[in-house]
Amino acid sequence: MSYSQSYTGYNDNRPSAPPAPDPGTGHPYPSYYGQQGQGQSYSSTSYGSYGYPSFPPGTHPDVIRSFQMVDRDRSGFIDENELQQALSSGYQRFSLRTIRLLMFLFKNLHDSLRIGPQEFAALWGCLGQWRAIFERFDRDQSGRIDAMELKDALYSLGYAVPDSVLSVLVSRYDDGSGCKVELTFDSFVECGMIMKGLTEKFKEKDPRYTGSVTFTYDTFMSMIIPFLV
Amino acid sequence: MSYSQSYTGYNDNRPSAPPAPDPGTGHPYPSYYGQQGQGQSYSSTSYGSYGYPSFPPGTHPDVIRSFQMVDRDRSGFIDENELQQALSSGYQRFSLRTIRLLMFLFKNLHDSLRIGPQEFAALWGCLGQWRAIFERFDRDQSGRIDAMELKDALYSLGYAVPDSVLSVLVSRYDDGSGCKVELTFDSFVECGMIMKGLTEKFKEKDPRYTGSVTFTYDTFMSMIIPFLV
Repeated sequence: MSYSQSYTGYNDNRPSAPPAPDPGTGHPYPSYYGQQGQGQSYSSTSYGSYGYPSFPPGTHPDVIRSFQMVDRDRSGFIDENELQQALSSGYQRFSLRTIRLLMFLFKNLHDSLRIGPQEFAALWGCLGQWRAIFERFDRDQSGRIDAMELKDALYSLGYAVPDSVLSVLVSRYDDGSGCKVELTFDSFVECGMIMKGLTEKFKEKDPRYTGSVTFTYDTFMSMIIPFLV
Repeated sequence: MSYSQSYTGYNDNRPSAPPAPDPGTGHPYPSYYGQQGQGQSYSSTSYGSYGYPSFPPGTHPDVIRSFQMVDRDRSGFIDENELQQALSSGYQRFSLRTIRLLMFLFKNLHDSLRIGPQEFAALWGCLGQWRAIFERFDRDQSGRIDAMELKDALYSLGYAVPDSVLSVLVSRYDDGSGCKVELTFDSFVECGMIMKGLTEKFKEKDPRYTGSVTFTYDTFMSMIIPFLV
């Protein structure tokens, strides 16, 4: 499975949404690695009429409109700032850090700094599903979820996050005030993309799901550094 | 070797500064993992008179002044914003991203959100050494270094960066303009801290320098996520 393919397929961006974890039994190992489907690959961009890259069949007009609104030079590709602007119209304003993670995880093989219609449509669809899951766990509709809700929400996305990992993940949002850490949707997407990205990279090296991988120093460094966007 | 110890000792922050690499022979394996000295540990903070945490003996008055200038509540600890302010007086304004990496790599065991005088003094000394190395490789004194100069500079810090890793590292600073990527001192410190931090983590798991490490999924995730500051 090529690196790019693992993020541009539709099914791959659709959470497997297992039932909420049973506290008694813990998490089943297979879902440990997140959703399994790899889906159809869009590792290369197809071009429609007039050479403008085309959206996948059935793409919602709002998605196409949001993309074309920011693609002012009609190049068929948008950069991180344009993506931030496009998502602001459909969802909300995401931090540039989250935007860069989204770009990194949804980019195609040929262009790491811009995304085309197909990547944009996949990304938009993924955010829609994540938004629904976020709202399901934001029980008091406060627009924020706490650590345990984050754990359950990530589990619904197919990631059974060990408590040791969860605490490290959540500590990044601790402002030191002593108040309970709560995450906005932006932070939830950031956490989810980190879990998705690192898990997929680990999974690539562990195709048989043994749960452990041997890395050389070069492989380790080359794999991690792209996440430090 | 405890995690905290590896970053709070003085010698550990002093680059081993091997000679520039010989293109013919490549990099000696031992330096692959960066400087070897672990130095004296400051994993706990000692307190001077009046309960104010004390600076190590011989700390330059400018360092103490810079710290105390931003430690307005005289708590003896400074947060990331105060660190950014303190370094602006002695060096330059660093991006919050670089500041967070510095905090993360120099923090003590007991407080991950603030640093005390000893960590600050170690950090300040490290930056001084890195500044000297940056200037040595910024041959035209432009205030910027290119990828090959970065490679040589990191090698002088004890990190023999494989080309595969270097290209990933440098690509983070590519603005897509097609111009040659050049790094400021801020970006150089960011790259250096990433190399230092990830290498030290890898080294902890590979005490015999075999060059490869087997990680479980939990260990892998718990190790990487703190770098995604």
